[in-house]
Amino acid sequence: MNPPPGTLTGLLTDPASRAAVATDRSGHVPATPPDGVVRARDVEDVVRTLRWATEHRTPVVTRGAGTGLAAGASAHAGEVVLDMSGMDRILQIRPDDQVAVVEPGVLTADLDAAAGEHGLFYAPDPASAAISTIGGNIATNAGGLRCAKYGVTREAVLGLDLVLADGRRVRTGRQTVKGVAGYDLTGLVVGSEGTLAVVVGATVRLRPRPAEVATLAAHFDDVVTAAAAASAITAARLQPSVLELVDSVTLEAVDAARGSSLRSLGGAVLVVQCDGRGAGAEIDAVGAVVGRSATTWRSTTDPAEADDLLATRRAALPALEATGDVFIEDISVPRSRLADAVRGVQAISARTGVRIATVAHAGDGNLHPVVVVERGGTVTEGPAWDAACAVFELALELGGTLTGEHGVGLLKRTWLRAELGQDCLDLQHDLKRVFDPLGILNPGKGI
Amino acid sequence: MNPPPGTLTGLLTDPASRAAVATDRSGHVPATPPDGVVRARDVEDVVRTLRWATEHRTPVVTRGAGTGLAAGASAHAGEVVLDMSGMDRILQIRPDDQVAVVEPGVLTADLDAAAGEHGLFYAPDPASAAISTIGGNIATNAGGLRCAKYGVTREAVLGLDLVLADGRRVRTGRQTVKGVAGYDLTGLVVGSEGTLAVVVGATVRLRPRPAEVATLAAHFDDVVTAAAAASAITAARLQPSVLELVDSVTLEAVDAARGSSLRSLGGAVLVVQCDGRGAGAEIDAVGAVVGRSATTWRSTTDPAEADDLLATRRAALPALEATGDVFIEDISVPRSRLADAVRGVQAISARTGVRIATVAHAGDGNLHPVVVVERGGTVTEGPAWDAACAVFELALELGGTLTGEHGVGLLKRTWLRAELGQDCLDLQHDLKRVFDPLGILNPGKGI
Repeated sequence: MNPPPGTLTGLLTDPASRAAVATDRSGHVPATPPDGVVRARDVEDVVRTLRWATEHRTPVVTRGAGTGLAAGASAHAGEVVLDMSGMDRILQIRPDDQVAVVEPGVLTADLDAAAGEHGLFYAPDPASAAISTIGGNIATNAGGLRCAKYGVTREAVLGLDLVLADGRRVRTGRQTVKGVAGYDLTGLVVGSEGTLAVVVGATVRLRPRPAEVATLAAHFDDVVTAAAAASAITAARLQPSVLELVDSVTLEAVDAARGSSLRSLGGAVLVVQCDGRGAGAEIDAVGAVVGRSATTWRSTTDPAEADDLLATRRAALPALEATGDVFIEDISVPRSRLADAVRGVQAISARTGVRIATVAHAGDGNLHPVVVVERGGTVTEGPAWDAACAVFELALELGGTLTGEHGVGLLKRTWLRAELGQDCLDLQHDLKRVFDPLGILNPGKGI
Repeated sequence: MNPPPGTLTGLLTDPASRAAVATDRSGHVPATPPDGVVRARDVEDVVRTLRWATEHRTPVVTRGAGTGLAAGASAHAGEVVLDMSGMDRILQIRPDDQVAVVEPGVLTADLDAAAGEHGLFYAPDPASAAISTIGGNIATNAGGLRCAKYGVTREAVLGLDLVLADGRRVRTGRQTVKGVAGYDLTGLVVGSEGTLAVVVGATVRLRPRPAEVATLAAHFDDVVTAAAAASAITAARLQPSVLELVDSVTLEAVDAARGSSLRSLGGAVLVVQCDGRGAGAEIDAVGAVVGRSATTWRSTTDPAEADDLLATRRAALPALEATGDVFIEDISVPRSRLADAVRGVQAISARTGVRIATVAHAGDGNLHPVVVVERGGTVTEGPAWDAACAVFELALELGGTLTGEHGVGLLKRTWLRAELGQDCLDLQHDLKRVFDPLGILNPGKGI
């Protein structure tokens, strides 16, 4: 029996506080709320909470802004939540080193904006950048639009300040761009979804803002043709910084939400951005590739017009969420299989009668099939969930993965063995025990 | 007591075979040679060797081409060597996915050349690329010249086929660009110097060969001025693909070896390469920065002339090796501290009377101070080693690391605690035990 949770200083146990941290944006609703929440303001709050949790064998669910899509931060009775969103200071921006040191609760877009004041940027830009935290991004190894060229969160994190399950503090990684002293604990913790340690600080890499940016939007008859065009851009050895695909179901939702008429121009859109000193020449080369199969396309170097072209992609998820409850999948396939994946998702939708919209980070082969059910329906069971599972199966058949950038969380856990195999999964559980021998860090999530 | 090593099929125990695999290019000579060597031809050879090693509790030192610089592949009596250089097939190049699947014994330059036939390249390019293997590059998380822009081996490896210490086979990672299903075991094994598992296959990322390349060489009065210019290039938010620094001691050795007269143009050289569609414009911007402090500089887009400019850097290590026995250090510092590091190395050389040349991947803040002693002198003890240790200390003082890309091996092991701290080092040893509970994989190296 646990002692009353109130013995932990700062633990909020009122129903509103507990309900506010019970889940994320995945659509998953735990049967019971967690026992309480600690809103960490400094490292000492984290150390104290974890020492208490170790002493009382109480599971701790660490949480950023709660924008996760795989129920990785959901929590139920018997668990306490450690809310890191209040540790939100940018501690250093060192322009000459192109490095920033931040607390985990910093919003990703805020870091990017602060870097921008020095002519730099923070490359990972999940669609949630304006509302998600660096700590949450680290937990899921978040990607985004620009990682087609600049890599995911793992590539941007140089070092971490951690609190271990027993309250010890450990620093991993380094302040330098390169380093190979000891095993890469930083990379191990990135993407570990709060199951190995609590991140209380991060040293991240910034990059020079590109001197030029050029943007293109191309419309296609259907999504399979658009996906093939995206693969053709890669095969032509062009390297856009953004290469996004939006299908007809999504376009209809966007048109409904924004009063636009994009659907009339075709059944799919590719939005492409190139950057660097040769951006204009590269976008022209992209135009030559898409021109072979597009119904229409246009490019621009005007920032406002570029924002307008990108707005379609940015509006996709909110527009779909306005039409029903959604489960946003996150499969990734080898880049040449993008059209096969899109075709497969369409077939699953047709076969099951479940509405599935697809947006994709096409430059990475990372698709977000969005399973949509009418408001009040259930996404994580019944036909919608069956369709979601068929999409997982499709990803593995195509040599892909269940999750490119959102994490396994709670919802994809039953599928993990199929992807990793038993021996690999056993290794992962053994690694988990090294960091968390009592199994108190976000149990039942990730691996 | 071990049974006679001859009971392992394929174990070569003749003195010449054993002597040939006793060490690498670090200068370290073990007191005794290893008991024998297995030259693996296929995965079954590896599985068989590791099962035997587990059964007989015999340490196994896995080896690529033996080009390591930290004695990571050195082996002594009581150990057997597993030589992977014969598993040297490129199994797949998939241009549309920009992915290759290789055996570990493939020479790095051979993979790059094979990718080149498809208009692609393999980004990591250690100076040893022509003679080192992908497996060895993975063991040390090798970098090279181009990683200033394209990242190190860790960023290029998507997935690994491993044989564990007990002979089980495990596949890590994926065939896709992105993925976050489970902990990043791939990243954990990259840089682990043969202490966690034996790599029998790798899926690696290829990149489009740049459309344009522009190269610049600039001469400076002294190395501190050159280092400051390198930092100024970074601070100007330019992003060269190559940014190499060569000091006067090295220039003198290069002049002696090649009959050139570079030293007469100044006491240090920066060689810079920019690539991509805006390469010419970017190299002009680099020229504007270096022009403020260079004695002379010139740039070119002609490939032959570019090779000539890069030849100085490529000739550096062979030229220094021709002047004496060398210990090549590998410290990395925050990029803004490059000039401080160069100045510190000069002071150590002056104080100890030990000759130290410096070449640096200046774009990364990664320096190779080369400690030189007359032929027949000893690098790893006495004044030369004391000077080397002073360089380690300098790196840590500047917020840097002992090793940017060569690994810890045997020679830097005593310094590791100073960099990582005891708790972090303990964690690493615990992780090691998960993979290798009997401690038979390259014991005494790395962590």
